[in-house]
Amino acid sequence: MIQGLPSLTVERLSNYRRVLNSYQYLDEAYIFSHHLARHVKIKAATVRRDLMLIDITGDQHRGYKVSEVLNKIAEAIDPDDVTNICFVGMGHLGSTIMEYLNSYHSRLKVIARFSLDETADYSAEPPSYSLTEIQQVIRSKNIKICALAVAPDFARELTTILMTAGITGILNFSPVQLQSSKTLNIENFDIVSKLERMAYETNPNHKKED
Amino acid sequence: MIQGLPSLTVERLSNYRRVLNSYQYLDEAYIFSHHLARHVKIKAATVRRDLMLIDITGDQHRGYKVSEVLNKIAEAIDPDDVTNICFVGMGHLGSTIMEYLNSYHSRLKVIARFSLDETADYSAEPPSYSLTEIQQVIRSKNIKICALAVAPDFARELTTILMTAGITGILNFSPVQLQSSKTLNIENFDIVSKLERMAYETNPNHKKED
Repeated sequence: MIQGLPSLTVERLSNYRRVLNSYQYLDEAYIFSHHLARHVKIKAATVRRDLMLIDITGDQHRGYKVSEVLNKIAEAIDPDDVTNICFVGMGHLGSTIMEYLNSYHSRLKVIARFSLDETADYSAEPPSYSLTEIQQVIRSKNIKICALAVAPDFARELTTILMTAGITGILNFSPVQLQSSKTLNIENFDIVSKLERMAYETNPNHKKED
Repeated sequence: MIQGLPSLTVERLSNYRRVLNSYQYLDEAYIFSHHLARHVKIKAATVRRDLMLIDITGDQHRGYKVSEVLNKIAEAIDPDDVTNICFVGMGHLGSTIMEYLNSYHSRLKVIARFSLDETADYSAEPPSYSLTEIQQVIRSKNIKICALAVAPDFARELTTILMTAGITGILNFSPVQLQSSKTLNIENFDIVSKLERMAYETNPNHKKED
């Protein structure tokens, strides 16, 4: 892990990896910064700056070597040890993300999901637990990061329970803004504002001003 | 609806509403721009500019009248007619968002969710359908916006099916970048890059540079 990278660089490196993963089985694959930039819809200069931050220089005529970029991204942003993740209240999204992470042997592992309707299925992949088991499962399986989507009041309650159980990061999709603390890093994703924006922009009465 | 508002203004107005909804039952409630700004973690000047765009002026001594702001936000960004939404592969998140939207009588309605495990429950709120019914349900119920979380290959296939059925906007949580077209507005949310960033920042070996 390279220390002190800007948050947005870490997110973009993760994006580059998603794009490059589909190139990795090509023999001796190279890519130019402007190609990669177009895939992730940002400026080529940003790609070059991010890659420079993790000590990659491209070949002027061939661009960046894909296998080298993938290795350096892994070295730069992947945790040194396996980091366990759980999904709460998000149905099968946890399984989808688990499969995706496994496809490139990520050190992030989705190892549990918790369902709101009391049904547990320990043989599923990842195993699905009832919410009543959450504190015990997070402790015993050393889960550190949680993606959370429940009702607002319940989200507030659960935050304390999760923190006590050892969670250090929450990606929150519940329609309420949760507060980070010294030992708990929370990122709120406001799905309602995205839906309202989409409704606004796709409304047939809406014409963008030129 | 006020035409031509910037996308980010629409999202922020939606955020202001989420905060102000908890104030609305207070008698004659007022709020200053810097209070509202602190709640949503942006600059007070941005709040004032957004509210000016939808023709609200505050009182110098008391700030903005909460009920007026809520009414004007609704006039500005809410669709003129009910807009129907469905959730695909996201478990109970659809129910949580449905309840939240109903709590302020939003014109956005979550009216269906589709589960990946073939279980349908027509009496649930919102009704839950099997994926095999998706095209027919979207058509017959006039659903326009879809929140989607499935495996990458399947997400690509489903996009065509959804568009054919009449969907005009997709909020995509599947770990694949889907492409917008002229008639289909897609916003990709990359949950994997958020998880990787969170793993990076909460790693005990990680110290932010001062």
